[in-house]
Amino acid sequence: MDDGVKSGQHAVRTSNLGLILRAVRRRAPCSRAEVAAATGLTKSTVSSLVGELIDRGLLREAGAAAGERRVGRPGVMLEVDDRSIAAIGLEVNVDYLTIVAVDLVERELFSRHADFDARAAGPGASVHRMAALLAEALADPLLAERTVLGVGIAVPGLVDAATGTVTHAPNLRWHDVALRGPVAAALARQGLGAVPVAVDNDAGLGAVAEHRGGHLAGTPDLVYVTGEVGIGAGVLVGGVPLRGARGYGGEIGHMPVDRGGPRCGCGRRGCLEARAGIAAILRGTVPDLLPDGPLAGAAIARAVRATAERAASGDARARGALAEAGEWLGRAAAVLANLLDPSAIVLGGYFVPLAPWLLPACEAAVAAHTIAPPRGGALVHASTLGLRAAARGGAASLVDALDRGRLPLPPRRRPAPRG
Amino acid sequence: MDDGVKSGQHAVRTSNLGLILRAVRRRAPCSRAEVAAATGLTKSTVSSLVGELIDRGLLREAGAAAGERRVGRPGVMLEVDDRSIAAIGLEVNVDYLTIVAVDLVERELFSRHADFDARAAGPGASVHRMAALLAEALADPLLAERTVLGVGIAVPGLVDAATGTVTHAPNLRWHDVALRGPVAAALARQGLGAVPVAVDNDAGLGAVAEHRGGHLAGTPDLVYVTGEVGIGAGVLVGGVPLRGARGYGGEIGHMPVDRGGPRCGCGRRGCLEARAGIAAILRGTVPDLLPDGPLAGAAIARAVRATAERAASGDARARGALAEAGEWLGRAAAVLANLLDPSAIVLGGYFVPLAPWLLPACEAAVAAHTIAPPRGGALVHASTLGLRAAARGGAASLVDALDRGRLPLPPRRRPAPRG
Repeated sequence: MDDGVKSGQHAVRTSNLGLILRAVRRRAPCSRAEVAAATGLTKSTVSSLVGELIDRGLLREAGAAAGERRVGRPGVMLEVDDRSIAAIGLEVNVDYLTIVAVDLVERELFSRHADFDARAAGPGASVHRMAALLAEALADPLLAERTVLGVGIAVPGLVDAATGTVTHAPNLRWHDVALRGPVAAALARQGLGAVPVAVDNDAGLGAVAEHRGGHLAGTPDLVYVTGEVGIGAGVLVGGVPLRGARGYGGEIGHMPVDRGGPRCGCGRRGCLEARAGIAAILRGTVPDLLPDGPLAGAAIARAVRATAERAASGDARARGALAEAGEWLGRAAAVLANLLDPSAIVLGGYFVPLAPWLLPACEAAVAAHTIAPPRGGALVHASTLGLRAAARGGAASLVDALDRGRLPLPPRRRPAPRG
Repeated sequence: MDDGVKSGQHAVRTSNLGLILRAVRRRAPCSRAEVAAATGLTKSTVSSLVGELIDRGLLREAGAAAGERRVGRPGVMLEVDDRSIAAIGLEVNVDYLTIVAVDLVERELFSRHADFDARAAGPGASVHRMAALLAEALADPLLAERTVLGVGIAVPGLVDAATGTVTHAPNLRWHDVALRGPVAAALARQGLGAVPVAVDNDAGLGAVAEHRGGHLAGTPDLVYVTGEVGIGAGVLVGGVPLRGARGYGGEIGHMPVDRGGPRCGCGRRGCLEARAGIAAILRGTVPDLLPDGPLAGAAIARAVRATAERAASGDARARGALAEAGEWLGRAAAVLANLLDPSAIVLGGYFVPLAPWLLPACEAAVAAHTIAPPRGGALVHASTLGLRAAARGGAASLVDALDRGRLPLPPRRRPAPRG
């Protein structure tokens, strides 16, 4: 546990602990000597810090059983300990809550998906439901034995990450909603202690998830595009999230693609969402199945499944509407390709099950409107993380924060050695 | 002169020389002791390296006359030497060549602007004309006494900076044109020795110029937009140019803003350039003054002047066409604002003299299509660097390369001290 005295020496130790953690993550399994060579730290410093990381459940010696510690035998290999820590990600979107827990090597421990109409519920009831879902997850036997690093919440809108406030989420109709404090308080009321809570944009977290664990993992210049009622972009430039001067970067849903085009949920005309958001797609593919009024809750997932079934069976209207939406997506993807020159653009969310019918028209529009010479191979890909991407990113970003020394270390599982 | 042996020690020395140069640039006037404190180098290392930088004409002691060196008197202040070095930038565009020379504090020594129809001339004749203009500049008395760091060439198109090749410049109709080698060879043939030549995108260099010396200098998240026949963007993220995976980032001229809109010079329909490029603007404002066929050469600058005169005198057609173009520019600027969340978008080139009539409609469209809360104050600005921005950026990027140890140091102006 952090002793509260953030002295210079303490800060150096914290920074070196992160350095070692990152070195082992990159090279595991690897020896203490390799870690020393990779980090430039002395062997004795590495030995002492590795001991602490083992005691805190962050590293282990390969093959060692839980709790066992075989100090310093030469040649013993280190790896990240996947047994004692968990990080939780939670996405709140227009029509669902998704929760994902990962271990320290970012393997999924479990995920839950719940239909939920966040718009109808409003911020207060949504916080309540989120806290209840989190409490359920924390009580799960898969997590009960683990130290929880924190909860990373993903929201489809502009977020002030410093304060954990949702500035503007048009599709949720949330404005200036403080989320971190109320969620943390609700967890505390349920006796779940002080779990750190972070809040960030869903698309940005989706990009983190793709970069760390999607099928294009490690691609440094990557854009992740959310496919929900809203459309957002998470941009990585050289592996680093592009946030912009105020942290509001990545907004593409209201890109004006069609002057005089259809009315968007935001009140403007011809936004990308009004042409290629999932509600716009469903109005084109399965108008007969939709309720009057705005689409919400479980109806969205049902209509997406029906769309995929009709398209698969050759339904001309469904295929035509998907091709039309794919073309608008491609025109927007070409804007991203021209401006950012990324290596990949990953379509996520509900775009994934619809990708077989969206992608051909999308790629054609990208090719038609991209100026740079073709790169050989597709630019636009369907995510393999589905509706779990943003929640996974929320969890992964906590693991990353730990690696970078930006989170307090979990408590020692055994007392510090004396002397 | 570089001794050719790039040993580890030599590399450290080069890197420390750059460190000191940058420290003095930021703090000048400042003492050797302040430089030591700022860089973490020992006083004796600083003393030795400052001596070398003075000998090479890069630093001087404040108030010291040229050639005079008052070694090590305590309290003597250092500053960047603006007397012995020059860097040259050269922009080739559809209708002009602009050349700018700056000293080591990036003050303009002179600039020349020449009407030139690069499209009609083709790459070979253009290289010939560029070399002639450079030779003229190098012979100018203002430069003749100075060591020239190099020539930075700005081109409106995709550039492979590593090889100095213009991959694709649609408005020049240049494709895969090697520029660095032929320009350097032409200079050598004129007996001008081995002047390093760099080639880069005009908008990216415009952004560098704005960041280092425009009226918004120091703004880390900034987009510079070229206003020529073509429209390009130079994006700085945290002060660093966004280049993308292949170096082709910043293309916005062919952003598809108007499906089914007017035919663009590139053959597509509804590109931003076809709505708001300078040729599109002039066809709306002064159609009676334009030649048949594509606009080129001096006719462009004349028509821009006539447009400004008519708009100033209240001509409704000119004002209407400018407001229309301003709105399209604003729609594109909103795309940049939403995606990148910059602190400023700077309109350059011919947009500058037309800004009084473009900006109101542009700002209105930005406000209408930007999702983030308003920042207070204008987002879109007219450049104060006019048609010299890209060339200035070409020169400034050489000074920056010197500061970062990426260019060979200029020769000593006096022999190295013995012992």
